[in-house]
Amino acid sequence: VSADIWVELPEDTPFPADNLPYGVFTTGGRPRVGVAIGDHILDVTSAAEDGLVGTAPEGTFAGGSLNAFAALGAEVWAPTRERIAELLQNRAAMDKVTLVPQSAARMLLPVTIGDYVDFYSSLHHATNVGMMFRPDQEPLPANWRHLPIGYHGRTSTIVVSGTAVQRPWGQQRGDAGPVFAPSSRLDFEAEVGFVIGPGNGDGSPIAAGDAEEHILGLCLVNDWSARDIQAWEYIPLGPFLGKSFATTMSPWIVPLAALAPSRVPPTPQDPEVLPHLRTSGDTAIDLELTVAINGTVVSRCAFRDMYWTMAQQVAHLTSNGTVVRPGDLCASGTVSGPTPRSEGSLLELTWNGERPLPLDDGTTRTFLEDGDGVVMAGWAGEVGFGVCAGTVLPAG
Amino acid sequence: VSADIWVELPEDTPFPADNLPYGVFTTGGRPRVGVAIGDHILDVTSAAEDGLVGTAPEGTFAGGSLNAFAALGAEVWAPTRERIAELLQNRAAMDKVTLVPQSAARMLLPVTIGDYVDFYSSLHHATNVGMMFRPDQEPLPANWRHLPIGYHGRTSTIVVSGTAVQRPWGQQRGDAGPVFAPSSRLDFEAEVGFVIGPGNGDGSPIAAGDAEEHILGLCLVNDWSARDIQAWEYIPLGPFLGKSFATTMSPWIVPLAALAPSRVPPTPQDPEVLPHLRTSGDTAIDLELTVAINGTVVSRCAFRDMYWTMAQQVAHLTSNGTVVRPGDLCASGTVSGPTPRSEGSLLELTWNGERPLPLDDGTTRTFLEDGDGVVMAGWAGEVGFGVCAGTVLPAG
Repeated sequence: VSADIWVELPEDTPFPADNLPYGVFTTGGRPRVGVAIGDHILDVTSAAEDGLVGTAPEGTFAGGSLNAFAALGAEVWAPTRERIAELLQNRAAMDKVTLVPQSAARMLLPVTIGDYVDFYSSLHHATNVGMMFRPDQEPLPANWRHLPIGYHGRTSTIVVSGTAVQRPWGQQRGDAGPVFAPSSRLDFEAEVGFVIGPGNGDGSPIAAGDAEEHILGLCLVNDWSARDIQAWEYIPLGPFLGKSFATTMSPWIVPLAALAPSRVPPTPQDPEVLPHLRTSGDTAIDLELTVAINGTVVSRCAFRDMYWTMAQQVAHLTSNGTVVRPGDLCASGTVSGPTPRSEGSLLELTWNGERPLPLDDGTTRTFLEDGDGVVMAGWAGEVGFGVCAGTVLPAG
Repeated sequence: VSADIWVELPEDTPFPADNLPYGVFTTGGRPRVGVAIGDHILDVTSAAEDGLVGTAPEGTFAGGSLNAFAALGAEVWAPTRERIAELLQNRAAMDKVTLVPQSAARMLLPVTIGDYVDFYSSLHHATNVGMMFRPDQEPLPANWRHLPIGYHGRTSTIVVSGTAVQRPWGQQRGDAGPVFAPSSRLDFEAEVGFVIGPGNGDGSPIAAGDAEEHILGLCLVNDWSARDIQAWEYIPLGPFLGKSFATTMSPWIVPLAALAPSRVPPTPQDPEVLPHLRTSGDTAIDLELTVAINGTVVSRCAFRDMYWTMAQQVAHLTSNGTVVRPGDLCASGTVSGPTPRSEGSLLELTWNGERPLPLDDGTTRTFLEDGDGVVMAGWAGEVGFGVCAGTVLPAG
């Protein structure tokens, strides 16, 4: 993809010509698939209907989600990406394609999600949480270095960036037994999501070395967490209502192809993992995240610091015959690094609320307050992810 | 509903005129909604298209799932049930409706499931599992009597009764560290499922007293479990690959209306639960389950023994603003009673494999062997659920 395109790009846009992420938008009418370019969206649904794409079967972009396109795999993704780049380079296409200002569009959830899996793949996050939630035990569970721990999250409450999130009520520990009250320990978790492309049919395990062929692209995820609800409920079957009230994903799915220049070797694993989880090559991605509360950046964390890779997560997830389907969402778990201010949650940044975090407006935070706006952003070199944003509404 | 119908009923049919459960079937062509009556299926999709039902909007039964019907609620369910009963009573309808022998039909999944929640609502099961999985701790977690513990299961691998289930591979403890091998501790869990009817829109909590208005009906569920995989993976985020390879549901959704005569008071709860989980009246159902392995009944358990009710589960699930949608599946957790042979899993029946269970063919079982057929059945008085069946295939 060349940068020599006819669309004018603002300086520092997250969506230069080398990115071309896919999303779903509306300007009031039917939802359409689009590709972000600078401050604009190229209307892929219209272009395909006008015969300007021609790389995917008719109707692929008609359904108001990326699922049909996701199912087609790299054989179709690669020429489609090439063709969209050509449309942006070819001045003769200027009058043929529809370019919508992002300010005039509303982004929708990009995929219909059949199953959502949230992993727990940062060594630093898992260690920190273990120290706080299970102070009397080894912080890292015995299985942690042997498999990428994960659990199923709720799909009905996955919302797109910009959707306000209401503070949940929930049962939590009280001085004289459990109480039912609004969460007072509402948190974010900065995560990286990936969207499944072609599925595995009736459940053939996907080899770790083939796993990336089943990934359409990446996005940002805020796994909102009510720590008081979670701490009371999670033994022995895991997080449930402490997480299920809302999960926010960013609207643009950045294709793996756009991330090729940001490939890096994964974190070394010790002990060596079992054969079905082994991979070779640069299976990690150098992607930096920032998290801001009301404009103050409170965390800078790096996806390359994760212990488990996406390829290993897909291999693990399908190793027992589980069916994955196009549009399924997997998330990395909180992206936390080893240094101060590289942790991807307030739980860690404030050490369970013990160390209030100063904001630029002179206030401090232990956990989120009503009205707080949480904005995550992600950059892999000059390829941006846009934002994953949400504002906290008071409990109902 | 009167038993005076023109369809001949076999003695001891699970599907008498007072039952009228809904399912989805095919005889080779497009999937259709049907109601079971004796050995037959009344083709509701065709009857609706022929103007013989007339209680639901056009197209309600056209989609090959019960979701659209589920969404309509008791206002439509009640007259539809009445109308179908009339068609079966009215001899003039004999030549107008289509009656398909069940032997000529293949049953399909009755609903498209957006989210699947598995609860853990038997005091006896939770205590037994606690003793085996966490022998050094109190068997019942501190939260257990205060909230109906649950977790999200995988929807992509929910299959209808009759689908063979392959023994999963998975990571498990070995003498010298974890190994990746076929599960050698494959188990069933006998559960009762319920299907969500009308959803709660954008997530308004559903009061416990209103919860049953959001339940279309009940079915049987086999929550297949690989105990070796589960035991190694489940700390701290709960069951994942030990369960996700397959969950079987019975094809017929027995309406709550058919279970009215089997209403009983719920198990007394001590301590009293928080106000939002309190209900009054006969919120439990007297429903007996049997589990057979290769024809030998190994368990007889009673749904009325559950500690937490469906109404409480729905109220808890939505208490934090979680969205439930028509067609969502919830399951009770293993139905285990307090007496020998009333436990709903081999884990408990054989006490973690220590006490092999004799079968009628002279063999014994600790856990399931390849080729074993597991058949669950359920009866609420004369109202039957049919079977929830599956045969174990060898690991791939």
